Amino acid sequence: MPYAPAEFLHVRQNRLRDALKHAELDGLIVTHLPNIFYLTNFTGSSAILLITADRLRFITDFRYLTAIDEAKHAGRGPADLEVVRVEGSYDQALADLLAEHAQLRLGFESDHLPVSRFQWLTDSLRAQVGRDGAPALKGVEGLVERARLRKDAHEIAILRAAAARLSEVTPDILAEARRGRSEREVAGAIDWRMRQAGFDKPAFDTIVGSGPNGALPHARPGSRVLADGDLVVLDFGAVYDGYCVDSTRMVSLGRPDREAARVFDAVAEAQAAAIAAVRPGVSRFAIDAAARDTLARHGLAEQFGHGTGHGLGIEVHEAPRITRRPKAAPAAGLPGEPEPVEPDMVFTIEPGAYLPGRLGVRIEDDVLVTSSGVDVLTSAARELAVR
Amino acid sequence: MPYAPAEFLHVRQNRLRDALKHAELDGLIVTHLPNIFYLTNFTGSSAILLITADRLRFITDFRYLTAIDEAKHAGRGPADLEVVRVEGSYDQALADLLAEHAQLRLGFESDHLPVSRFQWLTDSLRAQVGRDGAPALKGVEGLVERARLRKDAHEIAILRAAAARLSEVTPDILAEARRGRSEREVAGAIDWRMRQAGFDKPAFDTIVGSGPNGALPHARPGSRVLADGDLVVLDFGAVYDGYCVDSTRMVSLGRPDREAARVFDAVAEAQAAAIAAVRPGVSRFAIDAAARDTLARHGLAEQFGHGTGHGLGIEVHEAPRITRRPKAAPAAGLPGEPEPVEPDMVFTIEPGAYLPGRLGVRIEDDVLVTSSGVDVLTSAARELAVR
Repeated sequence: MPYAPAEFLHVRQNRLRDALKHAELDGLIVTHLPNIFYLTNFTGSSAILLITADRLRFITDFRYLTAIDEAKHAGRGPADLEVVRVEGSYDQALADLLAEHAQLRLGFESDHLPVSRFQWLTDSLRAQVGRDGAPALKGVEGLVERARLRKDAHEIAILRAAAARLSEVTPDILAEARRGRSEREVAGAIDWRMRQAGFDKPAFDTIVGSGPNGALPHARPGSRVLADGDLVVLDFGAVYDGYCVDSTRMVSLGRPDREAARVFDAVAEAQAAAIAAVRPGVSRFAIDAAARDTLARHGLAEQFGHGTGHGLGIEVHEAPRITRRPKAAPAAGLPGEPEPVEPDMVFTIEPGAYLPGRLGVRIEDDVLVTSSGVDVLTSAARELAVR
Repeated sequence: MPYAPAEFLHVRQNRLRDALKHAELDGLIVTHLPNIFYLTNFTGSSAILLITADRLRFITDFRYLTAIDEAKHAGRGPADLEVVRVEGSYDQALADLLAEHAQLRLGFESDHLPVSRFQWLTDSLRAQVGRDGAPALKGVEGLVERARLRKDAHEIAILRAAAARLSEVTPDILAEARRGRSEREVAGAIDWRMRQAGFDKPAFDTIVGSGPNGALPHARPGSRVLADGDLVVLDFGAVYDGYCVDSTRMVSLGRPDREAARVFDAVAEAQAAAIAAVRPGVSRFAIDAAARDTLARHGLAEQFGHGTGHGLGIEVHEAPRITRRPKAAPAAGLPGEPEPVEPDMVFTIEPGAYLPGRLGVRIEDDVLVTSSGVDVLTSAARELAVR
């Protein structure tokens, strides 16, 4: 089921409309494409949505008109979507549309709209209709993203299916990490495995970090050839029906030495502790602390520099952020993001430890918060694969 | 040669410094990652660069410190890069850095920085150092992108090599469009071919539009199975050493019918006309018109709704935009983009014609403007492949 049924779209739109009312706004200009997909099923690369209490105006260009028309007739998109065709530029079409709504207080996504586009828009509106004739534009942050925090039944079904699919192909993926192959070759083979497993595409650039390269948490796969004695970090994820799943597994080429085994065991323990901490109402900072404290007990506090996890959904990095409690604003992530995790949130748990010049370890799974605890969506082959 | 040699980076930085001086700025806050890559070789996913007359400050986090250190020692990055490690958030680190520079007039990339980040930054600076103590921040658009318009010798060498590689694998790519395969399977096979040919990854989601789906210029490959009588649009591109190439080819499963053959021939003629129009000093709107007028003569004016081409480089869609002359501001694309094309620009030529419900045709090649004319970088198998 690649598209959300119309009734789900209506629920999402109406929740957003409630949030808008609460923010004393008459509508929202949605420019962030993942948010547009969430509200309309639109998968193209250019669109602007104007959602008001009773209308859904949708600005797009020539390239997508036929597809939208077909989707509408097939019942795969909102039936009340009113398409506005771009003739000049998107922002010109938006300004023309806004000029008809002098009386409205409209929000815009200030965490996505660049400064120069906003300035052009306000200048253009003033030139068209004067300062008093233009609608009031108010920057809002994360309004749609906050709705996306808790997945609905359609999204959970897709994420479960996607995670099961990723788990199923994980043994084959691990088998691609072979002595004599370059990291880049292994990454290509992993991507191919995911495509063969029915995924649309990788969710991000697959990471293959072998030996000392494993200590670079976001290594680009390079020409280094995998060799005996390497620990290898494989971080792979893929998109299925518009939703992202993400996993990291470790392969040891030959028996791991004492240090490698020790670091792996510590990270595995930290991951288990963080997963065990997940249940509704628990602070996301406490989940992070469960992993971090475990690593600290093993003397690896300094070796774990990133957060414990991130939300998954239409974007591969979204809210909630499972991190240390931020010391100062602005926290990375979603403004106004709640501290406790809630049922129907989906996120990764992926602590790691990195010893520069020697090795790195990371273990990553995707979890769903349930009404009473946690479901681990990916769990295949989590132990160290010794090959 | 995956990384630009240090002397190229210096030339790029110094050209930017000249542009800053011309704009009466003491420095630029660079937040757009492709621009950061252009100036520093940095390939990670998070960084902010502050370039001033004599310093290069580089804000990044834990994940990239080891990689940057190694690159510096290996001579692959600017030797004078001063790394500022993020402890709280990127914007906090930037605010702290800016607070030390009350006396400077600094530009920021207003076409990339979201409104809310800019507002937080100015509020935070005022809170830290007061309104008078904060540096003057001025939005500028496309400063680095304008430098990127004309490729340097390092970039041209990569783009030539990448295009030759894509041309070489094109016959194998066309052979993947087989009866009985779904569009999605064909897209997966094309991506695998590009990986096998040594590319890092696809430059965009590969398009496979079969039969009536060919009329959707940006179709997502779906479950439709290729069948006899289909015209199939294959639009594929890939990244090589950080640079993008992009090509579209047409396959006919069985002998094309009269209409398909007629539309293909018209698009081929339009593409040839546009390529023939390319030479230094020619207006990019005139290149577009060469394609558009040809299609109009064949009664296909209404069937060609997009632009004729786009620049290629670090991004798969960049300046110059080969389009109709825009009627109203803001034009899509780079502000202040010159109208005449210049030597060392690289862009696509890709007219098309789309008959909703029936078929689509697009033919796309990558060209380099030379000092006297044009070099077509991709030209393999441009005729209709009848299979």
